[in-house]
Amino acid sequence: MASTSSLSLSNSLLARSVSHHAPASHSSDHRPGLCLSAASPLPTFSGLKSASSSSPAQIPIAALRRRFLQRQIRAAAIETLAPAETSLVDNSVNTIRFLAVDAVENANSGHPGLPMGCAPMGHVLYDEFIKFNPKNPYWFNRDRFVLSAGHGCMLQYALLHLAGYDSCKLEDLKSFRQWGSKTPGHPENFETPGVEVTTGPLGQGIANAVGLALAEKHLAARFNKPDCEIVDHYTYCILGDGCQMEGVAHEACSLAGHWGLGKLIALYDDNHISIDGDTEIAFTEDVSKRFEALGWHVIWVKNGNNGYDEIRAAIKEAKSVKDKPTMIKITTTIGYGSPNKSNSYAVHGSALGAKEVDATRKFLGWPHEPFHVPDDVKKHWSRHIPEGASLESEWNEKFAAYEQKYKEEADVLKSIITGELPAGWEKALPTYAPDSPGDATRVLSQQNINNLADVLPAFVGGSADLASSNLSLMKKFGNFQKNTPEERNIRFGVREHGMGAICNGIARHCPGMIPYCATFFVFTDYMRAAIRISALSQSRVIYVMTHDSIGLGEDGPTHQPIEHLASFRAMPNVLMLRPADGNETSGAYRVAILNKKRPSVLALSRQKVPLIAGTSIEGVEKGGYIVSDNSSDNKPDVILMGTGTELELAVEAAHELRKEGKAVRVVSLVSWELFGEQSAEYKESVLPEDVTARVSIEAASTFGWERMVGSKGKAIGIDSFGASAPAPVLYKELGITAQAVIAAAKELC
Amino acid sequence: MASTSSLSLSNSLLARSVSHHAPASHSSDHRPGLCLSAASPLPTFSGLKSASSSSPAQIPIAALRRRFLQRQIRAAAIETLAPAETSLVDNSVNTIRFLAVDAVENANSGHPGLPMGCAPMGHVLYDEFIKFNPKNPYWFNRDRFVLSAGHGCMLQYALLHLAGYDSCKLEDLKSFRQWGSKTPGHPENFETPGVEVTTGPLGQGIANAVGLALAEKHLAARFNKPDCEIVDHYTYCILGDGCQMEGVAHEACSLAGHWGLGKLIALYDDNHISIDGDTEIAFTEDVSKRFEALGWHVIWVKNGNNGYDEIRAAIKEAKSVKDKPTMIKITTTIGYGSPNKSNSYAVHGSALGAKEVDATRKFLGWPHEPFHVPDDVKKHWSRHIPEGASLESEWNEKFAAYEQKYKEEADVLKSIITGELPAGWEKALPTYAPDSPGDATRVLSQQNINNLADVLPAFVGGSADLASSNLSLMKKFGNFQKNTPEERNIRFGVREHGMGAICNGIARHCPGMIPYCATFFVFTDYMRAAIRISALSQSRVIYVMTHDSIGLGEDGPTHQPIEHLASFRAMPNVLMLRPADGNETSGAYRVAILNKKRPSVLALSRQKVPLIAGTSIEGVEKGGYIVSDNSSDNKPDVILMGTGTELELAVEAAHELRKEGKAVRVVSLVSWELFGEQSAEYKESVLPEDVTARVSIEAASTFGWERMVGSKGKAIGIDSFGASAPAPVLYKELGITAQAVIAAAKELC
Repeated sequence: MASTSSLSLSNSLLARSVSHHAPASHSSDHRPGLCLSAASPLPTFSGLKSASSSSPAQIPIAALRRRFLQRQIRAAAIETLAPAETSLVDNSVNTIRFLAVDAVENANSGHPGLPMGCAPMGHVLYDEFIKFNPKNPYWFNRDRFVLSAGHGCMLQYALLHLAGYDSCKLEDLKSFRQWGSKTPGHPENFETPGVEVTTGPLGQGIANAVGLALAEKHLAARFNKPDCEIVDHYTYCILGDGCQMEGVAHEACSLAGHWGLGKLIALYDDNHISIDGDTEIAFTEDVSKRFEALGWHVIWVKNGNNGYDEIRAAIKEAKSVKDKPTMIKITTTIGYGSPNKSNSYAVHGSALGAKEVDATRKFLGWPHEPFHVPDDVKKHWSRHIPEGASLESEWNEKFAAYEQKYKEEADVLKSIITGELPAGWEKALPTYAPDSPGDATRVLSQQNINNLADVLPAFVGGSADLASSNLSLMKKFGNFQKNTPEERNIRFGVREHGMGAICNGIARHCPGMIPYCATFFVFTDYMRAAIRISALSQSRVIYVMTHDSIGLGEDGPTHQPIEHLASFRAMPNVLMLRPADGNETSGAYRVAILNKKRPSVLALSRQKVPLIAGTSIEGVEKGGYIVSDNSSDNKPDVILMGTGTELELAVEAAHELRKEGKAVRVVSLVSWELFGEQSAEYKESVLPEDVTARVSIEAASTFGWERMVGSKGKAIGIDSFGASAPAPVLYKELGITAQAVIAAAKELC
Repeated sequence: MASTSSLSLSNSLLARSVSHHAPASHSSDHRPGLCLSAASPLPTFSGLKSASSSSPAQIPIAALRRRFLQRQIRAAAIETLAPAETSLVDNSVNTIRFLAVDAVENANSGHPGLPMGCAPMGHVLYDEFIKFNPKNPYWFNRDRFVLSAGHGCMLQYALLHLAGYDSCKLEDLKSFRQWGSKTPGHPENFETPGVEVTTGPLGQGIANAVGLALAEKHLAARFNKPDCEIVDHYTYCILGDGCQMEGVAHEACSLAGHWGLGKLIALYDDNHISIDGDTEIAFTEDVSKRFEALGWHVIWVKNGNNGYDEIRAAIKEAKSVKDKPTMIKITTTIGYGSPNKSNSYAVHGSALGAKEVDATRKFLGWPHEPFHVPDDVKKHWSRHIPEGASLESEWNEKFAAYEQKYKEEADVLKSIITGELPAGWEKALPTYAPDSPGDATRVLSQQNINNLADVLPAFVGGSADLASSNLSLMKKFGNFQKNTPEERNIRFGVREHGMGAICNGIARHCPGMIPYCATFFVFTDYMRAAIRISALSQSRVIYVMTHDSIGLGEDGPTHQPIEHLASFRAMPNVLMLRPADGNETSGAYRVAILNKKRPSVLALSRQKVPLIAGTSIEGVEKGGYIVSDNSSDNKPDVILMGTGTELELAVEAAHELRKEGKAVRVVSLVSWELFGEQSAEYKESVLPEDVTARVSIEAASTFGWERMVGSKGKAIGIDSFGASAPAPVLYKELGITAQAVIAAAKELC
């Protein structure tokens, strides 16, 4: 966390910024004075006001609205506001529109439609509601904003630009979608400070927002005191029709309603256009009624194109509803302002073209050159830099007061904010002597989870309704629920995809939040899109995936992973770990915790395995290592390799082969990624190039194993689907046996 | 299609069977007499009747029902029926319960809870409503039944057993979950005739049911005549709380409501228990209200444990609602009858144990030995064999009459029913001369889709809201919609997972339905669980996946597949095809159509590619083949390999290397699976073992390429995520160039 110096800021600025972000009616709830250093009553400043009546010519959209929009959802109350200030808001909104139009035009690539339609809600949100410090995008207590409709990223970049973020300077907007720029084609947290999560694949962002809001609710419940709300922010999200159609969004929103995430506010850009045209062709459900069924508060703003006051009133109302998340359906016109392309697919995903840009400039009364920001708009937005500094500074003072009064809690919270791991945390990882009894690696995983729960303060997680099979419960904690948000076991229900995406949100909340989530390994298929976002967005989510092979037995091929190990070994920036026993399971957790910028997928067994002599936590850190060897001079007759539950079979085969006088090395390849990152020397010491007699065994697809066994080696695995039968029968029938290893080895040496 | 002889059946049997399945109030709609040979008015037979009052001691469940169950959903009307017949229904229901209990006990593995709770709805459905012919499970006009909650498969096996299916004889039930049995741990269409689709992974089954109902509605609209409804069946589905939580189910159900699939009837086993315990911990949404929002008709049966009459009345009501799918929420007790384990997780997924089985026998008054079917139950169900034969025979007569009157339509329908491809269909595949201009393979795919639409009568499909990018529209057809179900373009909205699962249902409707579905290749991540079911269930779904690499450019890494080719190459029974140009694209479609028992994934380019000399449809059928070669004696200096858009780079590199005097072979590896299936001789003729100087290029993960390039070769690819920039910049920056191929080749030869 960078710190900012705001001591020099005037009191009045501080006061303005505070009340600006905390409307008078709620400030008493959220900003108790006891640990606030500037405790005097603050004057009210309610943001820019406007009257929708003086907006530019309005494109008629009423004709396009259909019956299902008529249902009885209350539109937000409208405030009547001074028309004098309208032109500034209009200017700001049009600035946002044209920054988007111009950047897309400049790149000749991108999505102008959403920013043009959502500029009003974007303006109101960022200028009037969202708490942020543009010079420290990582300030802990900021409000989080997620653009779930990530293709509209120029909206976000334009807003970050106006708000004063260094990541979105004018030259960045001009290099939109170019190699090396900070403004890629979809929002990426790792490229653009100010962007919280990586979105674009639809539905992910709103689910991330649920995770961010969960993290806030959890930390607030644990650390806030009656006299000091040290964790206190909202999570805002803009999502579109596309997000609404995605199952992952539905799963996450069902949970958000269940959990009563009152500080989650979703703005639904109801523009009725998706890539294939009018949503009428595929999306006629009553979204508002559905969200009511999910336990959300629902508001409808009918004029999102220039109903600034309605938008503002709706967000205020949403903030006042504390026990439910709110969805504000905001009816807009996609590409608002483009006379010939608005309200059509044509404006969704392509540059408008010079002619239409001109027409749009005329229509909206915007005579300026590309990338122009009018002075009044600049001036207006410029206050966010000092205000943001004040907000952070004020919070820092608040934290100092909190720390004085609640030292222990403050220390823990600090470690969560910074992500610094507690000294000696690794001692919590269980280790096993060679004569320890073995167990299923899911059982050994459970020991790790429970030990880590003791030492990692924000280790939170759960299962997609398989807690008793995944063994993923932290026994000393209760369930995170609406009324027990301080607890750490999360019950995701049968919603794997939502679970993964929510965990991404939790992981991105702050560096010390360490989410894990669990299901059967085969069901990573349901959540693969979320796992990929973990990897791409460099998020440490720990995927606890049990029942990792045909070893699960009778449930049959629908439940038996075959290709899954290979599929994750192929995915960039994922650690795929398949531990063989207790020590390797502990090693896998060590690696997972220490790799702060990538997710780990742990494949764990349903069935029991023995403790294998020679395994170690240190070995796991190398990804591949020698478990046993009776050769000399790095010249074994044959190298046997395995992972997970099949390492035992390699060991057993080695035992037999050694009896026959062979020099046999057994190698565990618990993580191919980590092994690949070792030095050439180390790799040669484990898998010497000259030893081509190599046999691998893994109860999974052999795809990819040529990398390890080489052209002359043999990979034993399963390249068809499994079957329903007791596990020992399956191993035998499908040829995953020590005998098969012995036979293959004998053919090679 | 096997045919059955029902001519010997008595008229009364025929009459009974017909009216049994078509309640008097609707029979006139569904069974117009004009092409029905037995056109005389039929006596009414309304199935077994019962009174819920005389049921065995009822486990109190009221106490467990929560507030949200109290909402104003109308329960089905109750018919008062003669108590005399109750004991037979009870006997039948208890037979189903104990067949499940005994089979699970025998296997010491499985899920008794659902069958025990759902036995009443299962009995009413199969005995009184579902049209089937047990001796020909593939009779075209049967009603389809899907057990979406697949873990409860003993319910289905017990019903199939009572109904007289040969796949579920008593010895099959006794070998439940054993190696080689017809009764695997989850329902598998390819193991058990009578099972329509493969379920188990939750949410898939209800989505399959949507696809089955879509297929019926489509074929009915195309082939039925005012005087003859030749396609006319219902699709029933039982789903549980788990299915309801899954996003894929939600996506598909949203579409079912949109499409108005009036003949889809879903029975929701509302038992409030999932694996982690009471659904209260993760699932408190108002499901009924949600389904109303999705445009479904919703009925609530409050006593699913023995309210036979309510269940019957609800199904009748559902059948009478023609313009909407119906969800019947049936409140049950999981494990009904087990005094100590019902209504708890304990009964969900494990055998009851001998003691509890005894207690359950006592509780339900069931003195019989395991696997006992009482004589009265046997006798009662035995009528389904002749009745089923009559149903089919009647339909066959109907078809004969239809054929006489509508020869052309009958011929087309027959080809759809049998799956026989029209003679000469392959001529529709476009071919390209070497001097043809090139194009993006997605454009070439569009030509194939449109040409195939002309010759394949039940080629239907669409995109997940990317039709204009995937180029997946059949131009001569309109959209399949509620009021235009005869059309063939399906608009899935942004619902990839639902799309895949619906296509599985379409493919499984009958052998001639050939569904395709389209999205960006990267979004196969969203639908991977459905694609895996295509593969496992041997369903010919064609996945048209465009924008298949960094070649899509500016959209950036969220949209750029890297690991996807490898991930499907690792998946069993999938054809992963990445054509390089026009001829290969046609070859890919040829292979996809001809492979009736596996899905094909086609990776297609956004960007233009030239036509490459040497490519061919025949080459694609081999999976890997020589595109050009200037070597002799099968001894090239170096072999260059590529797929898709990068084959061009291999060709370009070969050209340069040949100028320098090298003997260079260029190999296209368009489908690794097909290449893997060729003879050893053929493979040696393409990739001779002795030629170790091999270079591959593919704009994707190198994972797995060692299989092709060997230990000494070099794979050029991308093992990190992509980036946002114009495609040519990305190719250059990420090193996917002909120069890289040349350099690598020179190092090797």
